[in-house]
Amino acid sequence: MTAASAPAYVWQPSTAEIAARAGIDPAEVIRADQNTSPFSPPWAGEVASRFASGVNEYPAARYRDLRRAVAEHTGADESMVVPGAGADELILLAGRGVLRPGDRAVAESPTYAMYRIATLQAGAEYRSVPRVLPGAAFPTDALAAAARDAALTWLCVPANPTGDRPERAAVDAVVGAAGGVVVIDAAYAEFAGDGWGGYAAATPGVIVLGTLSKAFALAGARVGYALAAPEHAALLDRIRPPGSVSSLSVALALRSLAERSWMEEHVARVIELRRDLADGLRRLGLDPRPSSTNFVLAEVGPEAARIAGGLMDRGIVPRSFPDGHPLSEFLRFTVRTPQHQERMLDALDRELR
Amino acid sequence: MTAASAPAYVWQPSTAEIAARAGIDPAEVIRADQNTSPFSPPWAGEVASRFASGVNEYPAARYRDLRRAVAEHTGADESMVVPGAGADELILLAGRGVLRPGDRAVAESPTYAMYRIATLQAGAEYRSVPRVLPGAAFPTDALAAAARDAALTWLCVPANPTGDRPERAAVDAVVGAAGGVVVIDAAYAEFAGDGWGGYAAATPGVIVLGTLSKAFALAGARVGYALAAPEHAALLDRIRPPGSVSSLSVALALRSLAERSWMEEHVARVIELRRDLADGLRRLGLDPRPSSTNFVLAEVGPEAARIAGGLMDRGIVPRSFPDGHPLSEFLRFTVRTPQHQERMLDALDRELR
Repeated sequence: MTAASAPAYVWQPSTAEIAARAGIDPAEVIRADQNTSPFSPPWAGEVASRFASGVNEYPAARYRDLRRAVAEHTGADESMVVPGAGADELILLAGRGVLRPGDRAVAESPTYAMYRIATLQAGAEYRSVPRVLPGAAFPTDALAAAARDAALTWLCVPANPTGDRPERAAVDAVVGAAGGVVVIDAAYAEFAGDGWGGYAAATPGVIVLGTLSKAFALAGARVGYALAAPEHAALLDRIRPPGSVSSLSVALALRSLAERSWMEEHVARVIELRRDLADGLRRLGLDPRPSSTNFVLAEVGPEAARIAGGLMDRGIVPRSFPDGHPLSEFLRFTVRTPQHQERMLDALDRELR
Repeated sequence: MTAASAPAYVWQPSTAEIAARAGIDPAEVIRADQNTSPFSPPWAGEVASRFASGVNEYPAARYRDLRRAVAEHTGADESMVVPGAGADELILLAGRGVLRPGDRAVAESPTYAMYRIATLQAGAEYRSVPRVLPGAAFPTDALAAAARDAALTWLCVPANPTGDRPERAAVDAVVGAAGGVVVIDAAYAEFAGDGWGGYAAATPGVIVLGTLSKAFALAGARVGYALAAPEHAALLDRIRPPGSVSSLSVALALRSLAERSWMEEHVARVIELRRDLADGLRRLGLDPRPSSTNFVLAEVGPEAARIAGGLMDRGIVPRSFPDGHPLSEFLRFTVRTPQHQERMLDALDRELR
């Protein structure tokens, strides 16, 4: 399969489209499907406004300041850092940098959909190792076995869309067994208290991906990074578009990485709200799965599609999963503000009755 | 050649590095090497600040508003528009979407360096059709002949780094002869009064690339677009990273595309300053080449590298070309503010003596 015949992305409906469907103002739409933060950093306006006067000039193409700030945040050396337009761009780059046509990549199932797309775009074969849901644990042994002959193993830690965190021993088992590169997508790391800089430095076959979209609440800015041994970092650097991160996004990222205490308080606040959300789901008789992220997955039964449709009619967007997907009877809810979570739980209550 | 062994980008020195070399404040550095605007849109700060409060949410992944605004600006249908993080990302996507390993791509020489990189990253062969410089015209017949057997022909109209505009008849001749896709990189179109929407609609084998980095003065925002027949547009759309344009950049682009009169006045102002710059170069005894862009190319002789080094020591960055490059005895200067052009011409005067 070539890039040209690789599968298309499934675009999320836009907030404007949801609002039109619900007959409400776009500002009233609750996006609980994208695992973003409900809060934005308080300095965002001031920083954006200050740096906007320089928007006529290109960002510095090496992004050296951003690399330094990420290095400081993660404890990795600057030579290990590659910037990108969100972790998504880096997933595609990792696929293209590591995989050759005919290679095989493996991942657990369910997992983040972009790994399959990146694999097929590189002309490689994608193999899934299923968890048996609900309740099943991370498939450590089966994935480790599959990783032996794979050129690339995709690991999402904590895991999306299930929300749990594979144990460190499970990660070690897969990395230890892997015959090729292991990409650890650590998009939700901060919610689990994980830091991967030292691990990436000590484990040359690993590429760790991070993002400022989740714990740093900068999803709209599109800033992510890879951490890898200098050889792999240089490889990704060579094939990345030279200027895919805007200068305003760099400015927002630098301020956010320097103001780490805001991120830490933000993560604590989101974890508190996640507990409220899980409690609320339990009050509705559901059994939400444990989460180490900013979202909660819950089984709602064979009516899941109807329930999701009913919520969408009210301008509330959960993440639902298509027929045939192992999570087709589940819905995933991103942590929102207390007011929005209340509205979401009320609406869900009505749909569940 | 695979993506992994494709050539590396040659990074420009950052403004901070130039400032350190010259021993001056970064604000005093004159970047005349990147063909950006010396002015930023007056509303940039206000728009950036207003939309920053929503930076916690992702941009709408279809970028429908941006597509609509580009469609309106260019006169192309919305189904023909593909957004990207600057024209550079779209050049790489066009290479990957169109070329297969073993294919051949052709372009005139000298031309924009990214075409070769995009070609080699796709595993294809890159063939140059030289102009004989100085003074030589666009190599219409030779390029048309080479385009016959090429899967992709890269055309830069107006041409970078030479600055002139291949005649429409030359473009027609190449497009008419081409056996494959023709990518027309129209990054500087507005300075030449060119509009490509109708041409792209009428010519299914053509992909036109545009950018908001030049006439719209938004280089730092990283917003570009492709215009192509729906079949080619869908192909690029399928392989682009889903969210490489930040939400702040979308907001800046929408305002700029809606406020077209600012762009038109800006282009007129830049053309005026380009005339001043060319006049100034003539007063120094140089013979600048005709330009339909926001930069001027001038032959300075075998001392070009020394002269460029002398300017860099004063914090002024022209675009120079390495030994062996057909323009190794030329320097290229981006239009700057009147004050900066004066400082640049003074410094050049000293270096030329």
